[in-house]
Amino acid sequence: MSAIDDLATELSKLPGIGRKTALRLTYHLLKQPAGQSRRLAEALVTIAERVHPCARCHNLTEAELCSICADGRRDETVICAVEEASDIGAIERAGEFRGKYHVLGGRLSPLDGVGPEDLTVTDLEARVQSGGVREVIIATNPSIEGEATALYLQRRLAQYGVTVSRIARGLPVGGDLEYADGVTIAQALAARRVMQ
Amino acid sequence: MSAIDDLATELSKLPGIGRKTALRLTYHLLKQPAGQSRRLAEALVTIAERVHPCARCHNLTEAELCSICADGRRDETVICAVEEASDIGAIERAGEFRGKYHVLGGRLSPLDGVGPEDLTVTDLEARVQSGGVREVIIATNPSIEGEATALYLQRRLAQYGVTVSRIARGLPVGGDLEYADGVTIAQALAARRVMQ
Repeated sequence: MSAIDDLATELSKLPGIGRKTALRLTYHLLKQPAGQSRRLAEALVTIAERVHPCARCHNLTEAELCSICADGRRDETVICAVEEASDIGAIERAGEFRGKYHVLGGRLSPLDGVGPEDLTVTDLEARVQSGGVREVIIATNPSIEGEATALYLQRRLAQYGVTVSRIARGLPVGGDLEYADGVTIAQALAARRVMQ
Repeated sequence: MSAIDDLATELSKLPGIGRKTALRLTYHLLKQPAGQSRRLAEALVTIAERVHPCARCHNLTEAELCSICADGRRDETVICAVEEASDIGAIERAGEFRGKYHVLGGRLSPLDGVGPEDLTVTDLEARVQSGGVREVIIATNPSIEGEATALYLQRRLAQYGVTVSRIARGLPVGGDLEYADGVTIAQALAARRVMQ
């Protein structure tokens, strides 16, 4: 049954979806009205055709500028630099940040052959250089590569007289000290604050 | 970004895929060449358009008869009745069964309002009645509903002088007695065989 195998093969190319899950999803779709498969197909074609990086911040968008860059009510003086466009959604859901973003397109990783020229660092630098930016918050992941990327950006942007900050590391809210790893606990201790 | 939200919404309708996973898959697809989304979309449209139940056994197929019903080398005298078309794949992978199948389309479940008329029991009965069938192996799941369905089929088919058998229950091969549930161990003991 080649049509079923074809769909299972395409689905199993997605991350976290193995052959068995792909087959389960395929059989699930076969039990639904044909409209569901078609709507999924249309949504796939639409993102393939219409979505591209924002000309300013490299967030994903269907227009020239993404909805955040186009939003005049957001604070243009603060830029939050993230690794991937998907990180913007996570920060937006927190509802605390009202500035602009910059998507780096990854993190520095010499072992994987990812250098500064593979990221959108030059574009971020140009945004800072053009003036009007007060602070760059570096929100790369709290991994070794994310920290190295943050350090690199801090050094590169320092010359423009802009404040470069880093998101805090510590215990996740609602987390459990007992199950936290030692590195996180060490960071949480080092970054402790005096209670008032 | 409606195109991204649309795709995430469609993906999150699939079983086992929540909102976060759907977004992760969407962003993954956005990082791939557009061809991957398009091939997945085509595979979805193809199954929606071409795949339908086999006229004889209700397995899923693109032709009138499924590849197993159309295969003259398989034993027509033995029919293995399964709940879903996806169960056929599991049995075929085991590579032991060389007869034909019958897809019931579910299992009896009075609580969910599923009675015999909602399954393909009449079609199975007609296949048995038309002669040439020696044995019906009932391979419904070893759940309460699966057992009830097996019992119902056994009673209904008995009148045609056909052997009705049930797949064995016991400890899974490679399983661990220590972690097996009590019901399975009880079944495995009750179905014990004399070693020769």
